[in-house]
Amino acid sequence: MSPFHELHDRHRATLDAALDAIQSRAFLAHWPEPPSGKIYGETAQADGEAAFKALLGARFDALKQEGAARWGGAEESPYGFPLNVTYPLFDADTLVARANAAFPPWRNLHPRERAGLLVEALERSAKNFFAIAFATMHTTGQGFIMSFQASGPHAYDRALEAVALGLQEQTRFPESADWEKPMGRVSVKLRKNFRACGRGTGVVVGCSTFPVWNSVPAIFANLVTGNTVIVKPHPKSVLPVAIVVADLRAALADCGADPDVVQLAVDGEAPLALTLAAHPGVRLVDYTGGSAFGEELERLPGKIVFTEKAGVNSVLLDSVDELDPVLENLAFSVCLYSGQMCTTPQNFYIPAAGVREKDALVPYADVVRRFGEKVSALVSNEKAGPGTLGALQNPATLERLDAAQRLGFPVALASIPVAQAGFAGARSHAPALIEVPADRPDTYLKEMFGPIVFLIRTADSAESIRLAARSAATVGAITFAAYTTDSAMMDDIEDALLPVGAPVSFNLTGPIWVNQAATFSDFHVTGGNPAGNASLVDPAFIVRRFFIAGSRRPA
Amino acid sequence: MSPFHELHDRHRATLDAALDAIQSRAFLAHWPEPPSGKIYGETAQADGEAAFKALLGARFDALKQEGAARWGGAEESPYGFPLNVTYPLFDADTLVARANAAFPPWRNLHPRERAGLLVEALERSAKNFFAIAFATMHTTGQGFIMSFQASGPHAYDRALEAVALGLQEQTRFPESADWEKPMGRVSVKLRKNFRACGRGTGVVVGCSTFPVWNSVPAIFANLVTGNTVIVKPHPKSVLPVAIVVADLRAALADCGADPDVVQLAVDGEAPLALTLAAHPGVRLVDYTGGSAFGEELERLPGKIVFTEKAGVNSVLLDSVDELDPVLENLAFSVCLYSGQMCTTPQNFYIPAAGVREKDALVPYADVVRRFGEKVSALVSNEKAGPGTLGALQNPATLERLDAAQRLGFPVALASIPVAQAGFAGARSHAPALIEVPADRPDTYLKEMFGPIVFLIRTADSAESIRLAARSAATVGAITFAAYTTDSAMMDDIEDALLPVGAPVSFNLTGPIWVNQAATFSDFHVTGGNPAGNASLVDPAFIVRRFFIAGSRRPA
Repeated sequence: MSPFHELHDRHRATLDAALDAIQSRAFLAHWPEPPSGKIYGETAQADGEAAFKALLGARFDALKQEGAARWGGAEESPYGFPLNVTYPLFDADTLVARANAAFPPWRNLHPRERAGLLVEALERSAKNFFAIAFATMHTTGQGFIMSFQASGPHAYDRALEAVALGLQEQTRFPESADWEKPMGRVSVKLRKNFRACGRGTGVVVGCSTFPVWNSVPAIFANLVTGNTVIVKPHPKSVLPVAIVVADLRAALADCGADPDVVQLAVDGEAPLALTLAAHPGVRLVDYTGGSAFGEELERLPGKIVFTEKAGVNSVLLDSVDELDPVLENLAFSVCLYSGQMCTTPQNFYIPAAGVREKDALVPYADVVRRFGEKVSALVSNEKAGPGTLGALQNPATLERLDAAQRLGFPVALASIPVAQAGFAGARSHAPALIEVPADRPDTYLKEMFGPIVFLIRTADSAESIRLAARSAATVGAITFAAYTTDSAMMDDIEDALLPVGAPVSFNLTGPIWVNQAATFSDFHVTGGNPAGNASLVDPAFIVRRFFIAGSRRPA
Repeated sequence: MSPFHELHDRHRATLDAALDAIQSRAFLAHWPEPPSGKIYGETAQADGEAAFKALLGARFDALKQEGAARWGGAEESPYGFPLNVTYPLFDADTLVARANAAFPPWRNLHPRERAGLLVEALERSAKNFFAIAFATMHTTGQGFIMSFQASGPHAYDRALEAVALGLQEQTRFPESADWEKPMGRVSVKLRKNFRACGRGTGVVVGCSTFPVWNSVPAIFANLVTGNTVIVKPHPKSVLPVAIVVADLRAALADCGADPDVVQLAVDGEAPLALTLAAHPGVRLVDYTGGSAFGEELERLPGKIVFTEKAGVNSVLLDSVDELDPVLENLAFSVCLYSGQMCTTPQNFYIPAAGVREKDALVPYADVVRRFGEKVSALVSNEKAGPGTLGALQNPATLERLDAAQRLGFPVALASIPVAQAGFAGARSHAPALIEVPADRPDTYLKEMFGPIVFLIRTADSAESIRLAARSAATVGAITFAAYTTDSAMMDDIEDALLPVGAPVSFNLTGPIWVNQAATFSDFHVTGGNPAGNASLVDPAFIVRRFFIAGSRRPA
């Protein structure tokens, strides 16, 4: 009995609770989302910030990936300072050779052993949630609370979800079975063994805005199914991923497993992503990022490729009980991390006749004006605004924001710069609201990543549904928010949007937003439209990473 | 309540029994495999033959696919006569447009409705097993019994397996769930709905040797998950597939569904497969056939592609209790359908020192001689031989057989022509056994489709294992047969062959052969080596054909 079985026993309740939630789709948070001292320790935040600061201006040597030819790194905080952290650089051949050398013993562990090890590693790394949060904040530009939640509890819950479903899928069929075929007076009796086999080495290519959240499901899905992983973060968002990978490697080594089952790959002068993904020694590729490169990866011959690419998310406004809480909810949705979420709504379809509020129609122009006021109120709220907005990760997003306001369409609300206390150089800007005619899909049927909102006046809600469904089908969508009090229209919306792979959120107000996808319950990205070919975490995200091979012998 | 729900109730026991077997991997045959009058009716065989003969020399009009521009067909029986059957010809745009028009209502049925309809259609079509068998025999060249079993009960069991697993996978998560997130003194309550959505139209490209068996799993996997299907059989093996598709269309129409959810596509002057598969209106592609075209299909951008391609299957001879029954079993395996099964063993690895039989070593040369004698005895047995061999589907296979015997390597047993009673023109030929040196992988590491067996003398069984594992990993394998009485070696073989995706059969003798894969129990093709990227019928074969989209609203 290997020592790893004990780890499975230790974490069995955690895995069982995860599987219960996955099955019921009920609420579960294994790691609590509030960055609270009461939960994580009164000094946890200060300790995490100190740990983050201690990493700045230095070599990141916690990975223990030996033999680097060079060290490099080029990260800058969107809050206005360089990180000056350097990482060990390796070429693709070295990384792949190490991963493939670590593969056979890892593959040969029982899925329960791997699952136990991986939950143990997650639990240990969760002690570093605050350091990971500060590293996330100062690479992505997220506000602190989002940095903590998205790269900490929410991400690790998604990782746990992948581990639990991975364990279940690999063990759903019996390891041995007796088979007896009656053939008249005799029968043929066979004893069969079945084995779930990992495929080899996977490469996980991360994005700049959610480096941890978008990478750990794939990392852990690969690991639990017996594959090794090379994690290639975006060159501008390495540090939070580096901490996670270093934690994993340390936990694996400490438990007696080969840490090379997960390695960090950092870009040197030449980007590594395509070289790694196309490497003949690599079998699996996971990717989050822009559509053009995602489609290039999807076409790689002989690879199994999972993507989350760009989409255009829509909001439909038809009828409400009270308009103010709806507009407040939506104002928060478009301000949250300055519209840099793959779930952020971009296109608002509003009937020309206005939005019905109880028995009255609020004219279109009033809806636009009042929405602008809600956004202004939030961004001008010194307590809530800056932390909600965070900073723009990429200078190109600011250029896009400026260009969008110069398209020639009416700007209902101009973007303004927003101060971030303590960070004079922060790249922080409030959303712009721009009115685009419904007959200009050339403008609004493309992703305008960042704090850019298009308001589109439609003939009526039936047209809004048609436009939103066509948008999801043709350019992809990851979320869809609809506000209607008409239950028949709700059915119409489900029938129009779900089949084109757009998850629908109806009538959200209060502390729940269309941007959020709940681990264990909501499938994030459906894989049913051009926004991606995979879904977090559905069975297809798991079962393609291994295969089942059987043996049989006379019984 | 739609009338289709009643069909699900009617066939629930059948679906439940299938799911029980899928879960336990125990034996199940919903349709009995003996072509027996006692089971299928005393006149069933004669009626089936008459029905087949009535189709010859005529337009096949049972499909009821209207508006054909032209009719065509070019099938010839490998037993030596032309079929002169013609089929309605359509261009790809017409077929895809009809499929996509039929898609939304089909997708919108509940998975249980589709499953009920599909089992009903299978049960109705099973009345035509004998006509399908004669059509199979006189397109593929299979012997009559194999034609019956492979295109009848075995194929329909695989179809049922796909329907049952498809139903289970689409309904494994709740259709609705209540989600409540505690947030201090308040909580957020949402009601969630989940819907499994088909992706659109699939194309199923069949092969010439197992036109029904290799197509129906994909056809039914697509249909049960809410997709529509265009079935494109090999131009030389249309008729059995045409009968199946006509049966399906008739059953669907009779039950009140749109028959255009499944259509037959027959090649005219230009082959249709690539045009259909690459058509922008097609989402899913299933393919059985050669590797080069399979890899071309796998690279099609934006398609979900399932393939079974070519492989090289091996036999390892190490030690046995009694050699004669082993060689008899293997002689049958290589004679069965003249080696034209994707599961036929090709390369026999035999230790130079010989095969241990109890306490004695049977020298290598004796093993080769005695194996040749067993093959000769079978092919010369007038009762068993011709029916086991059948005929060569493709004249190119006969050319390959001739060329293999002229490679310059020792021919341990030369191929001989075999008479098929009643069919003077049958293309029927016994296997050739050819000794190829172990250092000539350029010769033996490629598929030699047909009655061609390579005997490879190895240093020892450890080398045999290494060569077989490398072969599976590099050129693919669908089966592997090992004969050893050494349980440690059995473990070594499992550890070497299963991870490269080669299912292992140990020590088979008597009425069970490595060529056979049992529905509901054995996974056929693992998807774990170059012989194919899919497995019949594992969860990955099902879950990629649909996605889950959810809605949520305040509860």
